[in-house]
Amino acid sequence: MLDRTAAPRNVPEPDIALAERLFDILKRETADTEGVTRAAYGKGEQFAHDLVIAEAQKVGLPTWIDAGGNLYVRLEGTAADRKAIIVGSHLDSVPMGGNYDGAAGVLSGLAIIVAWQRAGFRLADDLVVMVTRAEESNWFPHSYIGSKSALGLLPPYALDVRRSDTGRTLADHMTELGLKPHEVRAGIPQLKSEDIRAYIEMHIEQGPILIDKNLPVALVTGIRGSFRYREARVLGEYAHSGAVPRQYRHDAVIGAADLIMRLQDEWLGLEAEGHDMVYTVGMLSTDAAQHAFSKISGDVRLSIDVRSHNVPTLDAMRVRLHRIVQDVEQKHRVKVELGPLTGSEPAVMDAELLDIFGTAMEQTAVPRFEMACGAGHDAAVFAGQGVPTLMLFVQNQNGSHNPDEEMKMADFAIVTRVLAQGLALMS
Amino acid sequence: MLDRTAAPRNVPEPDIALAERLFDILKRETADTEGVTRAAYGKGEQFAHDLVIAEAQKVGLPTWIDAGGNLYVRLEGTAADRKAIIVGSHLDSVPMGGNYDGAAGVLSGLAIIVAWQRAGFRLADDLVVMVTRAEESNWFPHSYIGSKSALGLLPPYALDVRRSDTGRTLADHMTELGLKPHEVRAGIPQLKSEDIRAYIEMHIEQGPILIDKNLPVALVTGIRGSFRYREARVLGEYAHSGAVPRQYRHDAVIGAADLIMRLQDEWLGLEAEGHDMVYTVGMLSTDAAQHAFSKISGDVRLSIDVRSHNVPTLDAMRVRLHRIVQDVEQKHRVKVELGPLTGSEPAVMDAELLDIFGTAMEQTAVPRFEMACGAGHDAAVFAGQGVPTLMLFVQNQNGSHNPDEEMKMADFAIVTRVLAQGLALMS
Repeated sequence: MLDRTAAPRNVPEPDIALAERLFDILKRETADTEGVTRAAYGKGEQFAHDLVIAEAQKVGLPTWIDAGGNLYVRLEGTAADRKAIIVGSHLDSVPMGGNYDGAAGVLSGLAIIVAWQRAGFRLADDLVVMVTRAEESNWFPHSYIGSKSALGLLPPYALDVRRSDTGRTLADHMTELGLKPHEVRAGIPQLKSEDIRAYIEMHIEQGPILIDKNLPVALVTGIRGSFRYREARVLGEYAHSGAVPRQYRHDAVIGAADLIMRLQDEWLGLEAEGHDMVYTVGMLSTDAAQHAFSKISGDVRLSIDVRSHNVPTLDAMRVRLHRIVQDVEQKHRVKVELGPLTGSEPAVMDAELLDIFGTAMEQTAVPRFEMACGAGHDAAVFAGQGVPTLMLFVQNQNGSHNPDEEMKMADFAIVTRVLAQGLALMS
Repeated sequence: MLDRTAAPRNVPEPDIALAERLFDILKRETADTEGVTRAAYGKGEQFAHDLVIAEAQKVGLPTWIDAGGNLYVRLEGTAADRKAIIVGSHLDSVPMGGNYDGAAGVLSGLAIIVAWQRAGFRLADDLVVMVTRAEESNWFPHSYIGSKSALGLLPPYALDVRRSDTGRTLADHMTELGLKPHEVRAGIPQLKSEDIRAYIEMHIEQGPILIDKNLPVALVTGIRGSFRYREARVLGEYAHSGAVPRQYRHDAVIGAADLIMRLQDEWLGLEAEGHDMVYTVGMLSTDAAQHAFSKISGDVRLSIDVRSHNVPTLDAMRVRLHRIVQDVEQKHRVKVELGPLTGSEPAVMDAELLDIFGTAMEQTAVPRFEMACGAGHDAAVFAGQGVPTLMLFVQNQNGSHNPDEEMKMADFAIVTRVLAQGLALMS
């Protein structure tokens, strides 16, 4: 168990009660049929941003919103040549997701910065809680929109991608919120990476490892990269299910099912060879406007998501995928259109920050534990720009991206104290 | 080529021009984004029924609508102890379907009965053109609603099934059209099978056999029966696609894809053993309200349709399906809910009618050709009640249940003349 007396006395206790109250408000005000829905650049996300702004202003912390809608809360440092230490995370959620994915990182940072402001506790550097936009890329088919726009890295075409529920463009949604999509499109950096001393992101663990190990907190050593075909299609020919013999069929469902299982077999093979990889088809569908149980399907859509810590593994899987696609096309007399390829590079976490926060764990009597991260996070964008970057995980039940995710507040208090201690050690 | 002079002179020429004009009107007035949509008990189907009524009344043919909305056009026979020879088909279509599936049979019968009425040509028996309702069971998840209700065979619960687009019950839709669902629910026969001398249904071929053989017309020897799980589900657990290792996953997409491919393998095996069978998954979908490309899917829905001429083959496949379901559940840690089982018995066509219409083909100089029917039709319901039943196929391009079905009017003229000749031979 955690020995609270081991925490150095000079670091003010984070305001966990504040975080708990805000979690409750977010859960209630952004509730959907199941879980919560906080659409990127939508009502739920905006409500959450406004909630954070209000709490910062209550204690007199200055806030700033950049051209792309990212929010910054700043506690000024004491040094003359100070940089910014950013504690970042997001407040959007997947549809009918859980209340903690993203929000835990923001409210952890807020619990610290508010308590420190009240106590008059300052670092040499500025401490900045950054709330990024649109981290959950199911809303817009593009990764890390908020952090990329902050660093001037968002490609112009990304402003024209459409939100999956409204069909309206990212630029439209930014304009609706009074933001400045033209600045984002122009690639004007809102933050300079050379002004950032470190980017630190605390997040719920989205897998079951910390539960298995019975540990509250992990330091992340690296983030998986990915390649994705979000809008792949298998095209066949619609025909009557009773009247068309097998040899005449162009069955898109059989083509898609075979493609899915052959990629699964490749995963098993690469795993057996010792590769780190995950493969997921999360979205799969015949065309609801045309399908019928008595019709051979002519059109199946599916998403393909492959992730690995290693670029060569991603490359190998992509090559195999293209070979499998050709086989499937030939065998089932269908056409496979993979559609646009998106993805991200794997990211390595900063060794010095790992040292500092490892010490912070020891000083707060939390067992030191390191693991790799399977999911993508804004931290990968900062790491890719050479900003020293670190992630922390907190234990969480039932995974994430579902209504049942359940972080215990006791674990949240522990990881927040580790985060505060690590930040204090950086001064 | 067809030698028109071989047709006996005493049978009046069917009014092919009338049929052609009505095909055009139907195509225009029931057009959807692609093809035509004539929902069962909906606007398009009702428009088509009204069109037939108007044409019958123009020439003074009496019409009658039964409690379930089936339409009858009658040309009175000359015999004192006459029965009814029914020429039946339907006017509903699948969503974005073709203009000929169903309508060809109705307009073929109408072209004959209108021409005969004008010419004063009569059979000994009554000739009845019957227009059934709701033959395309994608609208309501129940087969042969119209013909079953006509014969008092529709189970009461079928009145409570809901239409796939409106979500309203069959009874509601009947009431909306001024029909009498309470009589249908009470199982009151609108037709007595002992009063029917024969049920004859002409339909476009829904497969490619007549094109392959370069023949205009086929006599059908039997109709495939089926079993169906229209609302099967594979249930897993939603989880983050990047963060959950394979051994922790309960992936509904992988479960569904494996189920689909294993059933496909069973089909190949049964085919190799000489069984007649077709197997189709026409509808397949993750849950659009919850899925995301970055989420392992917890819920996949799919339809399963298996058809065969032989009851033992259907039974064997159903047994294998249940074994495969258990394997899939165990291997992928998912749950498979097959949902309600529906289906139909295979039907054998009447030998005497095959003889008569075989002779009619010879007398109209059409090559005699017999084949089995893979799709279900109302004819199966009449055959199941012991009514002597026959089906005829006309050549059709591009299959059916799709916007591209394309029957040539020259072939329609040929099959209609065969039908007229066969009916005349029955007197």
